[in-house]
Amino acid sequence: MAETIGFLGLGQLGLPMAQNLLEAGHALRVYNRTADKAAPLVARGAQLAARPVDTVSPGGVVVSVLWDDASVEGIVDDAFLERLGKDGLHIAMTTIAPETSRRLAARHAAHGSRYLDAPVFGRPEAAAARRLWIPIAGEAAAKERARAVLEALGGQGIFDFGVEPGAAMTVKLAGNFLIMSAMRSLGEALSLASRSGVDPHAVVEMLTATMFGAPIYQSYGKIVADLVRAERPAPSSPIGAKDIGLFRKSAAAVASPAPLADALLPLLG
Amino acid sequence: MAETIGFLGLGQLGLPMAQNLLEAGHALRVYNRTADKAAPLVARGAQLAARPVDTVSPGGVVVSVLWDDASVEGIVDDAFLERLGKDGLHIAMTTIAPETSRRLAARHAAHGSRYLDAPVFGRPEAAAARRLWIPIAGEAAAKERARAVLEALGGQGIFDFGVEPGAAMTVKLAGNFLIMSAMRSLGEALSLASRSGVDPHAVVEMLTATMFGAPIYQSYGKIVADLVRAERPAPSSPIGAKDIGLFRKSAAAVASPAPLADALLPLLG
Repeated sequence: MAETIGFLGLGQLGLPMAQNLLEAGHALRVYNRTADKAAPLVARGAQLAARPVDTVSPGGVVVSVLWDDASVEGIVDDAFLERLGKDGLHIAMTTIAPETSRRLAARHAAHGSRYLDAPVFGRPEAAAARRLWIPIAGEAAAKERARAVLEALGGQGIFDFGVEPGAAMTVKLAGNFLIMSAMRSLGEALSLASRSGVDPHAVVEMLTATMFGAPIYQSYGKIVADLVRAERPAPSSPIGAKDIGLFRKSAAAVASPAPLADALLPLLG
Repeated sequence: MAETIGFLGLGQLGLPMAQNLLEAGHALRVYNRTADKAAPLVARGAQLAARPVDTVSPGGVVVSVLWDDASVEGIVDDAFLERLGKDGLHIAMTTIAPETSRRLAARHAAHGSRYLDAPVFGRPEAAAARRLWIPIAGEAAAKERARAVLEALGGQGIFDFGVEPGAAMTVKLAGNFLIMSAMRSLGEALSLASRSGVDPHAVVEMLTATMFGAPIYQSYGKIVADLVRAERPAPSSPIGAKDIGLFRKSAAAVASPAPLADALLPLLG
Protein backbone atom coordinates (compact mmCIF):
# COMPACT_ATOMS: atom_id res chain seq x y z
CA MET A 1 0.00 0.00 0.00
CA ALA A 2 1.21 3.48 -0.91
CA GLU A 3 1.87 6.21 1.68
CA THR A 4 -0.89 7.37 4.05
CA ILE A 5 -2.09 10.83 3.09
CA GLY A 6 -3.95 13.44 5.13
CA PHE A 7 -6.85 14.92 3.19
CA LEU A 8 -8.71 18.06 4.25
CA GLY A 9 -11.91 19.19 2.55
CA LEU A 10 -14.46 16.80 1.05
CA GLY A 11 -16.52 19.23 -1.02
CA GLN A 12 -17.64 18.74 -4.61
CA LEU A 13 -14.05 18.70 -5.82
CA GLY A 14 -12.28 17.24 -2.80
CA LEU A 15 -14.46 14.14 -2.49
CA PRO A 16 -13.75 12.67 -5.95
CA MET A 17 -10.06 13.55 -5.58
CA ALA A 18 -9.91 11.67 -2.26
CA GLN A 19 -11.72 8.74 -3.88
CA ASN A 20 -9.08 8.66 -6.62
CA LEU A 21 -6.34 8.47 -3.97
CA LEU A 22 -8.07 5.54 -2.27
CA GLU A 23 -8.41 3.80 -5.63
CA ALA A 24 -4.71 4.38 -6.29
CA GLY A 25 -3.94 2.42 -3.11
CA HIS A 26 -3.24 5.24 -0.66
CA ALA A 27 -4.47 5.03 2.90
CA LEU A 28 -6.26 8.26 3.87
CA ARG A 29 -6.94 10.17 7.05
CA VAL A 30 -9.70 12.59 6.12
CA TYR A 31 -11.25 15.65 7.74
CA ASN A 32 -14.28 17.67 6.75
CA ARG A 33 -16.12 20.37 8.71
CA THR A 34 -19.36 18.42 8.27
CA ALA A 35 -18.19 14.90 8.95
CA ASP A 36 -21.02 13.03 7.18
CA LYS A 37 -19.49 13.95 3.81
CA ALA A 38 -16.72 11.47 4.67
CA ALA A 39 -19.09 8.48 4.85
CA PRO A 40 -18.40 7.08 1.35
CA LEU A 41 -14.65 7.28 2.01
CA VAL A 42 -14.88 5.73 5.49
CA ALA A 43 -16.92 2.90 3.96
CA ARG A 44 -13.91 2.21 1.76
CA GLY A 45 -11.37 2.23 4.56
CA ALA A 46 -10.46 5.90 5.08
CA GLN A 47 -9.97 7.00 8.69
CA LEU A 48 -12.08 9.93 9.82
CA ALA A 49 -10.13 12.53 11.79
CA ALA A 50 -11.88 14.61 14.46
CA ARG A 51 -9.62 17.65 13.95
CA PRO A 52 -7.50 18.85 11.01
CA VAL A 53 -4.29 18.15 12.94
CA ASP A 54 -5.31 14.51 13.30
CA THR A 55 -4.95 13.98 9.55
CA VAL A 56 -1.25 14.85 9.71
CA SER A 57 1.64 12.32 9.90
CA PRO A 58 5.00 13.74 11.03
CA GLY A 59 7.04 14.21 7.87
CA GLY A 60 4.07 13.06 5.78
CA VAL A 61 1.91 14.49 3.02
CA VAL A 62 -1.29 16.43 3.60
CA VAL A 63 -3.60 17.75 0.84
CA SER A 64 -6.10 20.57 1.41
CA VAL A 65 -9.05 21.41 -0.87
CA LEU A 66 -11.04 23.94 1.13
CA TRP A 67 -13.25 26.93 0.45
CA ASP A 68 -11.22 30.10 0.86
CA ASP A 69 -8.23 31.86 2.41
CA ALA A 70 -9.74 31.91 5.90
CA SER A 71 -10.53 28.20 5.89
CA VAL A 72 -6.97 27.30 4.88
CA GLU A 73 -5.37 29.68 7.37
CA GLY A 74 -7.80 28.32 9.97
CA ILE A 75 -6.52 24.75 9.69
CA VAL A 76 -2.84 25.66 9.47
CA ASP A 77 -2.34 26.46 13.14
CA ASP A 78 0.80 25.90 15.21
CA ALA A 79 -0.28 22.38 16.23
CA PHE A 80 -0.76 21.45 12.54
CA LEU A 81 2.67 22.81 11.58
CA GLU A 82 4.46 21.29 14.57
CA ARG A 83 3.03 17.88 13.75
CA LEU A 84 3.75 18.12 10.00
CA GLY A 85 7.32 19.08 10.94
CA LYS A 86 10.57 18.56 9.11
CA ASP A 87 10.18 17.35 5.51
CA GLY A 88 6.41 17.17 5.81
CA LEU A 89 4.60 18.42 2.68
CA HIS A 90 1.37 20.40 2.47
CA ILE A 91 -0.14 20.39 -1.04
CA ALA A 92 -2.42 23.46 -0.97
CA MET A 93 -5.12 23.07 -3.63
CA THR A 94 -7.72 25.62 -2.49
CA THR A 95 -7.95 28.72 -4.70
CA ILE A 96 -6.64 31.50 -2.46
CA ALA A 97 -4.90 34.85 -2.86
CA PRO A 98 -1.25 34.57 -4.00
CA GLU A 99 -0.37 36.75 -1.01
CA THR A 100 -2.02 34.28 1.38
CA SER A 101 -0.13 31.44 -0.29
CA ARG A 102 3.18 33.26 0.23
CA ARG A 103 2.34 33.83 3.90
CA LEU A 104 1.45 30.15 4.36
CA ALA A 105 4.64 29.05 2.59
CA ALA A 106 6.72 31.15 4.99
CA ARG A 107 4.97 29.66 8.03
CA HIS A 108 5.61 26.12 6.77
CA ALA A 109 9.25 26.95 6.07
CA ALA A 110 9.66 28.22 9.61
CA HIS A 111 8.75 24.71 10.83
CA GLY A 112 10.98 22.93 8.28
CA SER A 113 7.92 21.80 6.33
CA ARG A 114 7.36 22.15 2.57
CA TYR A 115 4.40 23.90 1.00
CA LEU A 116 3.19 23.57 -2.60
CA ASP A 117 0.90 25.96 -4.45
CA ALA A 118 -1.29 23.57 -6.46
CA PRO A 119 -4.78 24.88 -7.28
CA VAL A 120 -7.03 22.86 -9.56
CA PHE A 121 -8.75 23.51 -12.87
CA GLY A 122 -11.65 21.16 -13.42
CA ARG A 123 -15.25 20.54 -12.47
CA PRO A 124 -16.28 17.71 -10.12
CA GLU A 125 -16.99 15.43 -13.12
CA ALA A 126 -13.45 16.10 -14.38
CA ALA A 127 -12.05 15.19 -10.95
CA ALA A 128 -13.97 11.91 -10.99
CA ALA A 129 -12.66 11.19 -14.50
CA ARG A 130 -9.07 12.07 -13.47
CA ARG A 131 -8.95 14.92 -15.96
CA LEU A 132 -7.75 17.81 -13.80
CA TRP A 133 -5.25 20.47 -14.87
CA ILE A 134 -2.95 21.57 -12.06
CA PRO A 135 -0.56 24.54 -12.11
CA ILE A 136 2.11 24.24 -9.40
CA ALA A 137 4.72 26.48 -7.81
CA GLY A 138 7.16 25.86 -4.99
CA GLU A 139 10.58 24.51 -4.21
CA ALA A 140 11.91 21.62 -6.30
CA ALA A 141 11.76 19.04 -3.50
CA ALA A 142 8.09 19.83 -2.85
CA LYS A 143 7.25 19.48 -6.55
CA GLU A 144 9.12 16.19 -6.84
CA ARG A 145 7.39 14.59 -3.91
CA ALA A 146 3.97 15.97 -4.87
CA ARG A 147 3.94 14.82 -8.48
CA ALA A 148 2.88 11.19 -7.92
CA VAL A 149 0.22 12.30 -5.43
CA LEU A 150 -1.17 14.91 -7.87
CA GLU A 151 -1.34 12.31 -10.61
CA ALA A 152 -3.02 9.80 -8.28
CA LEU A 153 -5.70 12.31 -7.20
CA GLY A 154 -6.69 13.04 -10.79
CA GLY A 155 -4.17 15.38 -12.42
CA GLN A 156 -3.92 14.64 -16.13
CA GLY A 157 -1.68 17.65 -16.70
CA ILE A 158 0.67 19.38 -14.25
CA PHE A 159 2.15 22.76 -15.24
CA ASP A 160 5.23 24.09 -13.45
CA PHE A 161 5.26 27.83 -12.73
CA GLY A 162 8.53 27.97 -10.89
CA VAL A 163 9.69 28.19 -7.31
CA GLU A 164 7.79 31.21 -5.97
CA PRO A 165 4.74 30.27 -3.88
CA GLY A 166 1.68 32.17 -5.07
CA ALA A 167 2.60 31.91 -8.77
CA ALA A 168 0.26 28.97 -9.39
CA MET A 169 -2.53 30.78 -7.51
CA THR A 170 -2.02 33.77 -9.83
CA VAL A 171 -2.38 31.43 -12.83
CA LYS A 172 -5.52 29.91 -11.32
CA LEU A 173 -7.09 33.34 -10.70
CA ALA A 174 -6.19 34.43 -14.25
CA GLY A 175 -7.73 31.25 -15.65
CA ASN A 176 -10.89 31.47 -13.58
CA PHE A 177 -11.36 35.08 -14.61
CA LEU A 178 -11.06 34.02 -18.27
CA ILE A 179 -13.56 31.20 -17.73
CA MET A 180 -16.12 33.44 -16.00
CA SER A 181 -15.59 36.17 -18.59
CA ALA A 182 -16.08 33.68 -21.44
CA MET A 183 -19.24 32.26 -19.85
CA ARG A 184 -20.89 35.58 -19.15
CA SER A 185 -19.85 36.98 -22.53
CA LEU A 186 -21.42 33.92 -24.15
CA GLY A 187 -24.56 34.72 -22.18
CA GLU A 188 -24.73 38.26 -23.61
CA ALA A 189 -23.89 37.15 -27.15
CA LEU A 190 -26.39 34.29 -27.22
CA SER A 191 -29.09 36.39 -25.57
CA LEU A 192 -28.77 38.94 -28.38
CA ALA A 193 -29.03 36.10 -30.91
CA SER A 194 -32.02 34.44 -29.28
CA ARG A 195 -33.96 37.66 -28.78
CA SER A 196 -33.22 38.58 -32.40
CA GLY A 197 -34.77 35.30 -33.61
CA VAL A 198 -31.49 33.45 -34.25
CA ASP A 199 -31.12 29.96 -32.75
CA PRO A 200 -28.42 30.25 -30.03
CA HIS A 201 -27.45 26.59 -30.48
CA ALA A 202 -26.71 27.24 -34.17
CA VAL A 203 -24.49 30.16 -33.12
CA VAL A 204 -22.61 27.92 -30.66
CA GLU A 205 -22.19 25.31 -33.37
CA MET A 206 -20.62 27.84 -35.73
CA LEU A 207 -18.40 29.41 -33.06
CA THR A 208 -17.07 26.10 -31.77
CA ALA A 209 -16.49 24.86 -35.33
CA THR A 210 -14.37 27.93 -36.03
CA MET A 211 -12.65 30.52 -33.79
CA PHE A 212 -13.86 29.14 -30.46
CA GLY A 213 -13.26 25.40 -30.81
CA ALA A 214 -12.10 24.98 -27.19
CA PRO A 215 -13.41 22.89 -24.28
CA ILE A 216 -14.71 25.94 -22.39
CA TYR A 217 -16.92 27.13 -25.25
CA GLN A 218 -17.94 23.59 -26.19
CA SER A 219 -19.01 22.59 -22.69
CA TYR A 220 -20.56 25.87 -21.53
CA GLY A 221 -21.90 26.90 -24.95
CA LYS A 222 -24.72 24.37 -24.91
CA ILE A 223 -25.59 25.08 -21.27
CA VAL A 224 -25.72 28.85 -21.86
CA ALA A 225 -27.70 28.42 -25.11
CA ASP A 226 -30.31 26.35 -23.23
CA LEU A 227 -30.62 28.98 -20.50
CA VAL A 228 -30.89 31.81 -22.99
CA ARG A 229 -33.49 30.08 -25.13
CA ALA A 230 -35.57 29.42 -22.02
CA GLU A 231 -35.20 33.15 -21.11
CA ARG A 232 -33.65 32.11 -17.79
CA PRO A 233 -30.96 34.26 -16.19
CA ALA A 234 -27.47 32.85 -15.61
CA PRO A 235 -27.34 31.30 -12.12
CA SER A 236 -25.38 33.11 -9.44
CA SER A 237 -21.93 31.72 -8.83
CA PRO A 238 -20.54 31.92 -5.29
CA ILE A 239 -17.26 30.32 -6.39
CA GLY A 240 -17.00 32.70 -9.33
CA ALA A 241 -17.75 35.69 -7.12
CA LYS A 242 -15.11 34.59 -4.61
CA ASP A 243 -12.47 34.03 -7.28
CA ILE A 244 -13.18 37.22 -9.25
CA GLY A 245 -13.00 39.06 -5.93
CA LEU A 246 -9.54 37.54 -5.37
CA PHE A 247 -8.56 38.42 -8.94
CA ARG A 248 -9.47 42.08 -8.41
CA LYS A 249 -7.72 42.23 -5.05
CA SER A 250 -4.59 40.64 -6.50
CA ALA A 251 -4.71 42.96 -9.54
CA ALA A 252 -5.03 45.99 -7.28
CA ALA A 253 -2.05 44.79 -5.21
CA VAL A 254 0.19 44.95 -8.30
CA ALA A 255 -1.55 47.97 -9.90
CA SER A 256 -2.79 45.88 -12.83
CA PRO A 257 -5.91 47.30 -14.54
CA ALA A 258 -9.03 45.12 -14.28
CA PRO A 259 -12.06 46.96 -15.69
CA LEU A 260 -13.70 43.81 -17.07
CA ALA A 261 -13.25 41.99 -13.76
CA ASP A 262 -14.88 45.02 -12.11
CA ALA A 263 -17.85 44.67 -14.48
CA LEU A 264 -18.02 40.91 -14.07
CA LEU A 265 -18.10 40.74 -10.29
CA PRO A 266 -21.61 42.17 -9.69
CA LEU A 267 -23.03 39.74 -12.29
CA LEU A 268 -21.99 36.69 -10.26
CA GLY A 269 -23.46 37.50 -6.85
CA MET B 1 -13.76 33.08 -67.78
CA ALA B 2 -16.27 33.08 -64.93
CA GLU B 3 -18.92 35.80 -64.49
CA THR B 4 -17.92 39.47 -64.14
CA ILE B 5 -18.43 40.65 -60.57
CA GLY B 6 -18.80 44.16 -59.20
CA PHE B 7 -16.64 44.68 -56.12
CA LEU B 8 -17.00 47.63 -53.75
CA GLY B 9 -14.48 48.34 -51.02
CA LEU B 10 -10.78 47.54 -51.28
CA GLY B 11 -9.76 47.89 -47.64
CA GLN B 12 -7.59 45.47 -45.68
CA LEU B 13 -10.17 42.71 -46.03
CA GLY B 14 -11.72 43.62 -49.39
CA LEU B 15 -8.46 43.77 -51.33
CA PRO B 16 -7.33 40.16 -50.71
CA MET B 17 -10.90 38.94 -51.31
CA ALA B 18 -10.99 40.73 -54.67
CA GLN B 19 -7.59 39.25 -55.50
CA ASN B 20 -8.93 35.78 -54.77
CA LEU B 21 -11.82 36.39 -57.20
CA LEU B 22 -9.40 37.45 -59.93
CA GLU B 23 -7.30 34.35 -59.29
CA ALA B 24 -10.43 32.20 -59.53
CA GLY B 25 -10.96 33.53 -63.05
CA HIS B 26 -13.63 36.17 -62.45
CA ALA B 27 -13.49 39.48 -64.27
CA LEU B 28 -13.94 42.35 -61.81
CA ARG B 29 -15.23 45.90 -61.94
CA VAL B 30 -13.95 47.48 -58.75
CA TYR B 31 -14.68 50.68 -56.86
CA ASN B 32 -12.96 52.21 -53.87
CA ARG B 33 -13.37 55.68 -52.38
CA THR B 34 -9.61 56.21 -52.70
CA ALA B 35 -8.97 54.80 -56.16
CA ASP B 36 -5.23 54.13 -55.78
CA LYS B 37 -6.00 51.09 -53.60
CA ALA B 38 -7.26 49.43 -56.80
CA ALA B 39 -3.86 49.62 -58.54
CA PRO B 40 -2.74 46.01 -57.82
CA LEU B 41 -6.08 44.73 -59.12
CA VAL B 42 -6.08 46.95 -62.22
CA ALA B 43 -2.55 45.71 -62.96
CA ARG B 44 -4.04 42.24 -63.12
CA GLY B 45 -6.91 43.14 -65.42
CA ALA B 46 -9.66 44.51 -63.13
CA GLN B 47 -11.62 47.49 -64.46
CA LEU B 48 -11.69 50.54 -62.23
CA ALA B 49 -15.16 52.09 -61.89
CA ALA B 50 -15.52 55.83 -61.28
CA ARG B 51 -18.74 55.46 -59.29
CA PRO B 52 -20.27 52.57 -57.30
CA VAL B 53 -23.07 52.20 -59.86
CA ASP B 54 -20.51 51.58 -62.60
CA THR B 55 -19.48 48.28 -60.98
CA VAL B 56 -22.99 46.89 -61.46
CA SER B 57 -24.11 44.63 -64.33
CA PRO B 58 -27.88 44.36 -64.87
CA GLY B 59 -28.92 41.07 -63.28
CA GLY B 60 -25.33 40.50 -62.14
CA VAL B 61 -23.52 39.98 -58.85
CA VAL B 62 -22.05 42.76 -56.76
CA VAL B 63 -20.06 42.30 -53.54
CA SER B 64 -19.61 45.06 -50.95
CA VAL B 65 -16.99 45.08 -48.17
CA LEU B 66 -17.20 48.60 -46.77
CA TRP B 67 -16.72 50.34 -43.43
CA ASP B 68 -20.11 50.84 -41.79
CA ASP B 69 -23.87 51.22 -42.17
CA ALA B 70 -23.62 54.71 -43.66
CA SER B 71 -21.09 53.68 -46.30
CA VAL B 72 -23.26 50.76 -47.45
CA GLU B 73 -26.46 52.81 -47.47
CA GLY B 74 -24.52 55.53 -49.30
CA ILE B 75 -23.67 53.30 -52.27
CA VAL B 76 -27.09 51.64 -52.50
CA ASP B 77 -28.91 54.55 -54.09
CA ASP B 78 -31.76 54.36 -56.61
CA ALA B 79 -29.40 54.34 -59.60
CA PHE B 80 -27.52 51.36 -58.11
CA LEU B 81 -30.73 49.43 -57.47
CA GLU B 82 -32.24 50.25 -60.85
CA ARG B 83 -29.13 49.05 -62.62
CA LEU B 84 -28.80 45.86 -60.51
CA GLY B 85 -32.45 45.17 -61.34
CA LYS B 86 -34.34 41.93 -61.64
CA ASP B 87 -32.41 38.86 -60.43
CA GLY B 88 -29.33 40.92 -59.65
CA LEU B 89 -27.62 39.87 -56.40
CA HIS B 90 -25.92 42.08 -53.82
CA ILE B 91 -23.71 40.11 -51.41
CA ALA B 92 -23.42 42.47 -48.42
CA MET B 93 -20.27 41.62 -46.44
CA THR B 94 -19.76 44.79 -44.37
CA THR B 95 -20.52 44.35 -40.65
CA ILE B 96 -23.62 46.50 -40.14
CA ALA B 97 -26.63 46.59 -37.82
CA PRO B 98 -29.15 43.78 -38.44
CA GLU B 99 -31.79 46.49 -38.69
CA THR B 100 -29.87 48.23 -41.49
CA SER B 101 -29.52 44.91 -43.27
CA ARG B 102 -33.28 44.35 -43.12
CA ARG B 103 -33.90 47.83 -44.51
CA LEU B 104 -31.44 47.22 -47.36
CA ALA B 105 -33.01 43.85 -48.14
CA ALA B 106 -36.42 45.46 -48.47
CA ARG B 107 -35.08 48.13 -50.83
CA HIS B 108 -33.47 45.49 -53.05
CA ALA B 109 -36.66 43.41 -53.05
CA ALA B 110 -38.62 46.45 -54.19
CA HIS B 111 -36.45 46.51 -57.35
CA GLY B 112 -36.67 42.74 -57.93
CA SER B 113 -33.04 42.31 -56.79
CA ARG B 114 -31.72 39.84 -54.24
CA TYR B 115 -29.75 40.75 -51.15
CA LEU B 116 -27.61 38.44 -49.02
CA ASP B 117 -26.44 39.07 -45.47
CA ALA B 118 -22.87 37.69 -45.56
CA PRO B 119 -20.47 39.31 -43.06
CA VAL B 120 -16.97 37.89 -42.71
CA PHE B 121 -14.96 36.42 -39.83
CA GLY B 122 -11.26 36.56 -40.53
CA ARG B 123 -8.29 38.86 -40.52
CA PRO B 124 -6.66 40.13 -43.74
CA GLU B 125 -4.10 37.28 -43.62
CA ALA B 126 -6.97 34.78 -43.40
CA ALA B 127 -8.62 36.39 -46.42
CA ALA B 128 -5.37 36.07 -48.40
CA ALA B 129 -5.11 32.42 -47.34
CA ARG B 130 -8.77 31.75 -48.28
CA ARG B 131 -9.60 30.86 -44.70
CA LEU B 132 -12.64 33.02 -44.02
CA TRP B 133 -15.73 31.96 -42.07
CA ILE B 134 -18.94 33.41 -43.45
CA PRO B 135 -22.39 33.30 -41.82
CA ILE B 136 -25.16 33.96 -44.35
CA ALA B 137 -28.87 34.75 -44.25
CA GLY B 138 -31.33 35.47 -47.03
CA GLU B 139 -33.66 33.85 -49.50
CA ALA B 140 -32.68 30.46 -50.94
CA ALA B 141 -32.05 31.72 -54.50
CA ALA B 142 -29.63 34.36 -53.19
CA LYS B 143 -27.73 31.77 -51.13
CA GLU B 144 -27.52 29.36 -54.04
CA ARG B 145 -26.12 31.89 -56.44
CA ALA B 146 -23.75 33.39 -53.84
CA ARG B 147 -22.16 30.16 -52.69
CA ALA B 148 -19.61 29.74 -55.51
CA VAL B 149 -18.69 33.43 -55.28
CA LEU B 150 -18.20 33.22 -51.50
CA GLU B 151 -15.97 30.19 -51.93
CA ALA B 152 -13.99 31.89 -54.69
CA LEU B 153 -13.39 35.02 -52.61
CA GLY B 154 -11.94 33.00 -49.71
CA GLY B 155 -14.74 31.37 -47.72
CA GLN B 156 -13.52 28.08 -46.26
CA GLY B 157 -16.71 27.67 -44.25
CA ILE B 158 -20.19 29.05 -44.96
CA PHE B 159 -22.83 28.84 -42.20
CA ASP B 160 -26.50 29.18 -43.07
CA PHE B 161 -28.63 31.14 -40.58
CA GLY B 162 -31.89 30.99 -42.46
CA VAL B 163 -33.93 33.29 -44.64
CA GLU B 164 -34.29 36.45 -42.53
CA PRO B 165 -31.91 39.22 -43.54
CA GLY B 166 -30.04 40.56 -40.50
CA ALA B 167 -29.63 37.12 -38.89
CA ALA B 168 -26.06 36.69 -40.16
CA MET B 169 -25.22 40.24 -39.02
CA THR B 170 -26.49 39.31 -35.54
CA VAL B 171 -24.18 36.28 -35.54
CA LYS B 172 -21.28 38.45 -36.69
CA LEU B 173 -21.89 41.02 -33.93
CA ALA B 174 -22.17 38.23 -31.33
CA GLY B 175 -18.92 36.69 -32.58
CA ASN B 176 -17.04 39.98 -32.68
CA PHE B 177 -18.17 40.78 -29.15
CA LEU B 178 -16.86 37.39 -28.00
CA ILE B 179 -13.55 37.98 -29.78
CA MET B 180 -13.08 41.47 -28.30
CA SER B 181 -14.15 40.24 -24.87
CA ALA B 182 -11.70 37.31 -25.05
CA MET B 183 -8.83 39.58 -26.16
CA ARG B 184 -9.37 42.23 -23.53
CA SER B 185 -9.95 39.61 -20.82
CA LEU B 186 -6.68 37.98 -21.85
CA GLY B 187 -5.08 41.39 -21.45
CA GLU B 188 -6.31 41.70 -17.86
CA ALA B 189 -5.44 38.12 -16.96
CA LEU B 190 -1.94 38.23 -18.44
CA SER B 191 -1.25 41.66 -16.98
CA LEU B 192 -2.00 40.30 -13.50
CA ALA B 193 0.36 37.40 -14.21
CA SER B 194 3.17 39.53 -15.58
CA ARG B 195 3.01 42.12 -12.82
CA SER B 196 2.96 39.29 -10.28
CA GLY B 197 6.20 37.90 -11.71
CA VAL B 198 4.65 35.03 -13.70
CA ASP B 199 5.67 34.68 -17.36
CA PRO B 200 2.55 35.53 -19.42
CA HIS B 201 3.71 33.31 -22.28
CA ALA B 202 3.83 30.32 -19.91
CA VAL B 203 0.26 31.13 -18.85
CA VAL B 204 -0.86 31.24 -22.50
CA GLU B 205 0.87 27.91 -23.11
CA MET B 206 -1.00 26.27 -20.26
CA LEU B 207 -4.37 27.82 -21.16
CA THR B 208 -4.17 26.91 -24.84
CA ALA B 209 -3.02 23.37 -23.97
CA THR B 210 -6.09 22.92 -21.77
CA MET B 211 -9.42 24.77 -21.52
CA PHE B 212 -8.69 27.45 -24.13
CA GLY B 213 -7.21 25.46 -27.01
CA ALA B 214 -8.98 27.54 -29.68
CA PRO B 215 -7.68 29.65 -32.58
CA ILE B 216 -8.67 32.94 -30.91
CA TYR B 217 -6.65 32.28 -27.76
CA GLN B 218 -3.79 30.70 -29.69
CA SER B 219 -3.40 33.58 -32.15
CA TYR B 220 -4.10 36.50 -29.81
CA GLY B 221 -2.56 34.92 -26.70
CA LYS B 222 1.01 35.40 -27.91
CA ILE B 223 0.34 38.94 -29.16
CA VAL B 224 -1.27 39.98 -25.88
CA ALA B 225 1.48 38.29 -23.82
CA ASP B 226 4.11 40.25 -25.76
CA LEU B 227 2.28 43.55 -25.16
CA VAL B 228 1.79 42.83 -21.48
CA ARG B 229 5.39 41.80 -20.90
CA ALA B 230 6.54 45.02 -22.56
CA GLU B 231 4.12 46.95 -20.29
CA ARG B 232 2.44 48.34 -23.41
CA PRO B 233 -1.30 49.05 -23.38
CA ALA B 234 -3.61 47.24 -25.78
CA PRO B 235 -3.92 49.28 -28.98
CA SER B 236 -7.17 51.09 -29.63
CA SER B 237 -9.46 49.28 -32.06
CA PRO B 238 -11.69 51.43 -34.26
CA ILE B 239 -13.27 48.31 -35.82
CA GLY B 240 -13.85 46.80 -32.39
CA ALA B 241 -15.37 50.03 -31.11
CA LYS B 242 -17.68 50.26 -34.12
CA ASP B 243 -18.81 46.63 -33.81
CA ILE B 244 -19.28 46.68 -30.01
CA GLY B 245 -21.28 49.88 -30.51
CA LEU B 246 -23.50 47.99 -32.98
CA PHE B 247 -23.74 45.06 -30.55
CA ARG B 248 -24.99 47.34 -27.76
CA LYS B 249 -27.42 49.12 -30.05
CA SER B 250 -28.79 45.81 -31.33
CA ALA B 251 -29.01 44.40 -27.81
CA ALA B 252 -30.90 47.48 -26.63
CA ALA B 253 -33.31 47.12 -29.57
CA VAL B 254 -34.36 43.66 -28.34
CA ALA B 255 -33.99 44.44 -24.60
CA SER B 256 -31.11 42.00 -24.20
CA PRO B 257 -28.79 42.79 -21.26
CA ALA B 258 -25.23 43.71 -22.21
CA PRO B 259 -23.28 44.85 -19.13
CA LEU B 260 -19.96 43.38 -20.33
CA ALA B 261 -20.35 45.03 -23.74
CA ASP B 262 -20.99 48.27 -21.86
CA ALA B 263 -17.72 47.80 -19.94
CA LEU B 264 -15.81 46.75 -23.06
CA LEU B 265 -16.71 49.68 -25.30
CA PRO B 266 -14.73 52.45 -23.54
CA LEU B 267 -11.63 50.22 -23.55
CA LEU B 268 -11.53 50.11 -27.36
CA GLY B 269 -11.69 53.81 -28.24
